[in-house]
Amino acid sequence: MQIGMVGLGKMGGNMAERLRRGGHDVVGFDRDPSLSDVASLKELVSRLQTPRTVWVMVPAGAPTQQTIDDLGELLSAGDVVVDGGNSHYVDDQKHAAELAGKGVGFVDCGVSGGVWGLDNGYALMCGGDRPHVERLMPIFETLKPEGEDGFVHAGDVGAGHFAKMVHNGIEYGMMQSFAEGWELLEASDVVKDVRGCFSSWRTGTVIRSWLLDLMVRALDDDEHLEGLRGYAQDSGEGRWTVQAAVDHEVPLPVITAALFARFGSRQDDPPAMKVVAALRNQFGGHATTS
Amino acid sequence: MQIGMVGLGKMGGNMAERLRRGGHDVVGFDRDPSLSDVASLKELVSRLQTPRTVWVMVPAGAPTQQTIDDLGELLSAGDVVVDGGNSHYVDDQKHAAELAGKGVGFVDCGVSGGVWGLDNGYALMCGGDRPHVERLMPIFETLKPEGEDGFVHAGDVGAGHFAKMVHNGIEYGMMQSFAEGWELLEASDVVKDVRGCFSSWRTGTVIRSWLLDLMVRALDDDEHLEGLRGYAQDSGEGRWTVQAAVDHEVPLPVITAALFARFGSRQDDPPAMKVVAALRNQFGGHATTS
Amino acid sequence: MQIGMVGLGKMGGNMAERLRRGGHDVVGFDRDPSLSDVASLKELVSRLQTPRTVWVMVPAGAPTQQTIDDLGELLSAGDVVVDGGNSHYVDDQKHAAELAGKGVGFVDCGVSGGVWGLDNGYALMCGGDRPHVERLMPIFETLKPEGEDGFVHAGDVGAGHFAKMVHNGIEYGMMQSFAEGWELLEASDVVKDVRGCFSSWRTGTVIRSWLLDLMVRALDDDEHLEGLRGYAQDSGEGRWTVQAAVDHEVPLPVITAALFARFGSRQDDPPAMKVVAALRNQFGGHATTS
Amino acid sequence: MQIGMVGLGKMGGNMAERLRRGGHDVVGFDRDPSLSDVASLKELVSRLQTPRTVWVMVPAGAPTQQTIDDLGELLSAGDVVVDGGNSHYVDDQKHAAELAGKGVGFVDCGVSGGVWGLDNGYALMCGGDRPHVERLMPIFETLKPEGEDGFVHAGDVGAGHFAKMVHNGIEYGMMQSFAEGWELLEASDVVKDVRGCFSSWRTGTVIRSWLLDLMVRALDDDEHLEGLRGYAQDSGEGRWTVQAAVDHEVPLPVITAALFARFGSRQDDPPAMKVVAALRNQFGGHATTS
Repeated sequence: MQIGMVGLGKMGGNMAERLRRGGHDVVGFDRDPSLSDVASLKELVSRLQTPRTVWVMVPAGAPTQQTIDDLGELLSAGDVVVDGGNSHYVDDQKHAAELAGKGVGFVDCGVSGGVWGLDNGYALMCGGDRPHVERLMPIFETLKPEGEDGFVHAGDVGAGHFAKMVHNGIEYGMMQSFAEGWELLEASDVVKDVRGCFSSWRTGTVIRSWLLDLMVRALDDDEHLEGLRGYAQDSGEGRWTVQAAVDHEVPLPVITAALFARFGSRQDDPPAMKVVAALRNQFGGHATTS
Repeated sequence: MQIGMVGLGKMGGNMAERLRRGGHDVVGFDRDPSLSDVASLKELVSRLQTPRTVWVMVPAGAPTQQTIDDLGELLSAGDVVVDGGNSHYVDDQKHAAELAGKGVGFVDCGVSGGVWGLDNGYALMCGGDRPHVERLMPIFETLKPEGEDGFVHAGDVGAGHFAKMVHNGIEYGMMQSFAEGWELLEASDVVKDVRGCFSSWRTGTVIRSWLLDLMVRALDDDEHLEGLRGYAQDSGEGRWTVQAAVDHEVPLPVITAALFARFGSRQDDPPAMKVVAALRNQFGGHATTS
Repeated sequence: MQIGMVGLGKMGGNMAERLRRGGHDVVGFDRDPSLSDVASLKELVSRLQTPRTVWVMVPAGAPTQQTIDDLGELLSAGDVVVDGGNSHYVDDQKHAAELAGKGVGFVDCGVSGGVWGLDNGYALMCGGDRPHVERLMPIFETLKPEGEDGFVHAGDVGAGHFAKMVHNGIEYGMMQSFAEGWELLEASDVVKDVRGCFSSWRTGTVIRSWLLDLMVRALDDDEHLEGLRGYAQDSGEGRWTVQAAVDHEVPLPVITAALFARFGSRQDDPPAMKVVAALRNQFGGHATTS
Repeated sequence: MQIGMVGLGKMGGNMAERLRRGGHDVVGFDRDPSLSDVASLKELVSRLQTPRTVWVMVPAGAPTQQTIDDLGELLSAGDVVVDGGNSHYVDDQKHAAELAGKGVGFVDCGVSGGVWGLDNGYALMCGGDRPHVERLMPIFETLKPEGEDGFVHAGDVGAGHFAKMVHNGIEYGMMQSFAEGWELLEASDVVKDVRGCFSSWRTGTVIRSWLLDLMVRALDDDEHLEGLRGYAQDSGEGRWTVQAAVDHEVPLPVITAALFARFGSRQDDPPAMKVVAALRNQFGGHATTS
C-alpha cells in the first residue's frame, strides 16, 4: 500500500527500505534533502492518495510535536498518522486528541530492533482504534519479523508506547543483572575464566537470552572490557517507566536500581557521598579537638 | 567410563540415566533402596575399579558433608569425588582440603537444567585441578547439552559453585525484571493485552530469552495469574551471591532487590512497616491530644 | 498585621490561632460555616485592607487551584497570596504566573510541625520574590518556632515546596532506616530487649533524633507493635521527590526504597511475585512432564 | 572498682580516663609502652585483685582473638572479660565459650560516642549473663552519659555487639537519607539556599537530629562541600548488618542501598557499568555494519 514516511534517519530510512522491499509505495520526507523524496512535508502529503497514511519517525518531544502539528494542518478527515518514534505515552493521548479534532486518526507504535531490523524485522507494539490499526496491518506485516510473534495491538492510543516503555524498563533490569554478575565474578579470584562462564551459559541454562549472546560477543572482543569506561547513558524510557510506576503505586526496585546505576555511572564524584564523607569527618574531626 | 552416583533423586536419577544412555557404566546409591543399585555407600565403592570416580548429588549442607566424610573413609589415593549439588563455594574448599589429606581429588560442579536436562543436557560449571577435570571430561561431555557451549572449567576448587551461584543471582534479577514489568502493565489501564505484549516480545526484541518463553507459557495457562499467590521461595544461591558481594565490596543493587522482593513476598504483615505506621500515628495521635 | 486565612482545618485552624496569640488580626474563611469568620471568600477579601495578604491552607491539587483562581478574580494589584499547603512545586510556578498577570504576588511556603505546631511553632520553608517575603516576615516570625532556626527563604517561587518535598523525602528514608533496624532486631533471637535498645539510644549515640524519641513512645505503648498492621500510606511528597530525582538524573536509592516499601506494604499479594512464582512453577512443572 | 583496660588508643585511653575521673582504679596495658601502665598483659593480670575484671578495647578480628586467647591463659575462674571493641556478634559467642571452659565470664559491649565520649559519656549496649553484667554496673554507670538512657543490657552474649551493629546500620541509612536529599537540592536550580534549608530544619521539623546538626556544621565550613571527594569508607558493621539480614530473611532495602552507595563511591569506573556500555555498543555497533 502507499505510505508517507517522515524522518529517514537510521531507523526511518531502514524501515522505508524494508517497506519498499515488501512491495509498498513509500514516499519519504526528511529535512536533509539528500535523503528526501520530496521538497517539503506539504509535497509529501500532496503525493499521497486519500485516505492517506503517514508514519512519523522523528525524535520524540519537540520534533514530533511539530510534525504532528504540521500534519494536522495538511491532512484531511479519514487520514491516519502513526507515531513510530520514542514518544511518551502521555503525549500520544494529546496528539490523538489534536488530530481527532480534524477527523484524522492516530496510532502510536513502539518499534524495537535497531539496525538488525532492516533484515530481521522490527518488533512492533501499537495502540489505537481497531479500524485504524486494521488499515495499517499490511504495513505492520511487512515491518515485523517473520513468524507469529513480533507484533501486538496492545490497547488504545498510548498503549504501544507504554508497552515499549515497559519493554525497555525490563531491558534495563536484565542488562544490569548481567552486569552485576560479571562484576562479582571479576572481583572474586575464585573464578579464573569469567568469559568462559558467560559463553558456556548460552546453552542449557535459565539465563540464555539474546542479551547474553551480545555479552559474549562483547567479551570476545575485549575479555575484561578494558577499553570501555563504566559510563552508561539512558534513553528516556527507563525514566518514564520509573515515573509511571510511582504514578501507579507499583514498587519497581530492580528497574529503578538499574536506572540509578546509570545515573551514578555518570558522576565522577557522587555529591551524596560528599555528605557521607563530611559526616564521617565530623565524627572524627571533633575527635581531634575534644 | 565407570562412575558411582550418590543420590538418585530427581536430579541425580536423571543424570545417571543420561550417563547410561551415553554408554557409561553407572553404579548408583541412594538411601531409598527402591532407587539404589547397591545396599550401601561401602558397596558402591567396592563395585568401582580404581582409580574411582564418585559423583555426589545430595542436598547441600549436612547431607553433602556426611557423604564427603564417608567417602573420605572409603576411597583411596587417586580417586576423585565430584560434588554436583548446590554447595556453597566456601564448603568446596574445605571438602577439597579434607579429601586431599587422603590423596583423593575433588571437583565441584554447578549443574543447571532441571528436568529438561535428561533430554537436552545439563549446563555444567566446574572447578578443580586440571588433571581431575580432564579425567572427568567423558562424563561432562555426556551430561552437557550438544554444541560448543554448556560447559566451563571455571577455575580452581570452588569456582564451579561460585559460577553457578552468580548464574542464579543473575537469574533472580532477570526474573524480577520481567515480574516488575508485568506488574506495571497490569496496573495501568492503558495496555489491554498484557499477555499479547509478552508473547509478541519473543521475536525481534532485546529481551527475548528462555525466561520470556516460560513467562508466555505461564500467561497462556492463566492470563492474569489469578491462580497463584505472590509468594516466592529462594534457594540459597541468591543469598550467597549477596553475601559474596558484600565480602567483595561489590554493589549489587538489582540482584539484592530481587532477593529482598522474595523475602518480602513471604511476609503477611511486614514488621518494618509497622514501625512506619507507628511513627505516622505518633505524628497524628498527638494531633488529637494537643 | 492583618491576614486572611483560607482553610481552617487542623493545620489552618491552629495556625490562625497561633497568629492571633501573636497579636495578628486574622480573618478566617472555611467552607464549614461553623469554623468560618465570614460567609464567603469574597467577604474575606472585602474585610481586608489593601494591600492584602491571604494565606491559603487547603488540600493540594484541585482545591488549591480553585482557591487561587477565585483569589485571582477577587484580589487587586499589590496583594500577596501565600500557598502553605502541600502543593507540588511545579504548580507553584503556574500559580505565580497566573496571579502575576493581575499584579498579585505569590509566595509558596512548606509547613512542618503538625499538631505540635500550635504550641511549639511551625518550621517554614518559603519561596518567592524578596519584597513579598519581606512583607510577610511578621507572619513568619510568629508562626515559626523560637530561636534562630525553623525558617528559610529557600529561593524563588517553588523553592519552599521543593525544600519541603525534599525534607519529607529525607524523612521517608530516616523512618525506613529505623524500621529496618527494628525488624532485624526483632527477627534475631540474640537481642531480647529491643525496646530497651531503642530507648537507650536516645542519649550519646549517632542516631539520636526526634524520630527516635517518637519511636520509643510508640514502643512504650505497644512493645512489639502487635496492635498495628504493617501498612503505610504515603502523602505525595515522597513520590514527587523520586520523580524530581529522575528528572534531575540524581540517583536516590534510599529514599526510593523507602517509598517502594510503602507501596509494597499495601499489597496483599504482590503481583510481581506471582510472576516469580509462575516462572519457578514453569521450571518445576516441566519436571513432572519430562 | 578496680578494672584492667587492654588497649589505650583513642577509645580505650579516653575510656580509662573517664573511669579514673569517676573514681575507679584502672590499670592499663597497651603495646605502646609510652601509653601503658604495665610491661605486659601478664603484669596487668597480676596487678588486679580477684575476682578480676578486664576490659578489652583493641581492634576486632585477630587482635581481639589474640587478647582473648592470652587472657584465657592468664585469668582464673570467677574473673570476667568485657570485649568493648567492634567485634562481630558471632565471634562473641565463640569467645564466651572459650573462656567459659576456664570459668571466666564474658560480656560483650558495643560502645558509641567517639571522641565526644570522654566528656559526654559513651552509649553502651551489652550482652551477657545477668550476674556478670551486674558486677560491671559501677563501670557502666561511670562510662555512660548522665540520665536514664545510654545503657542497655540487650540480651545474652553477642546481644551487645548485635545491637551496636544494627545501630550502625540505621546510622548508614540516616546518613544516606540526608546525603540524597542534599544532592537533589543541589542539583535543582529552584532552591538557592541549600545550606539555609538544612540549618532551618534543626527546629520544628520531623528530621531534626544530631546528624542534622553535624551536617549543618559541615556545610557551615564548606557550603558546597567542594573540598571533599565523594568517597566513603565503611567500617564493617554495615556489612554485617546486611549479612545478618540475609541470614534472617529480613528485607533491608534502605540500609543495603546505603552500604552499596559507599561501595560504589570507591569505584572510579564501575565495572558493572562497563557491561552496560558494552551491551549498548553491541546494539549500536551492529547498526554501523548492517
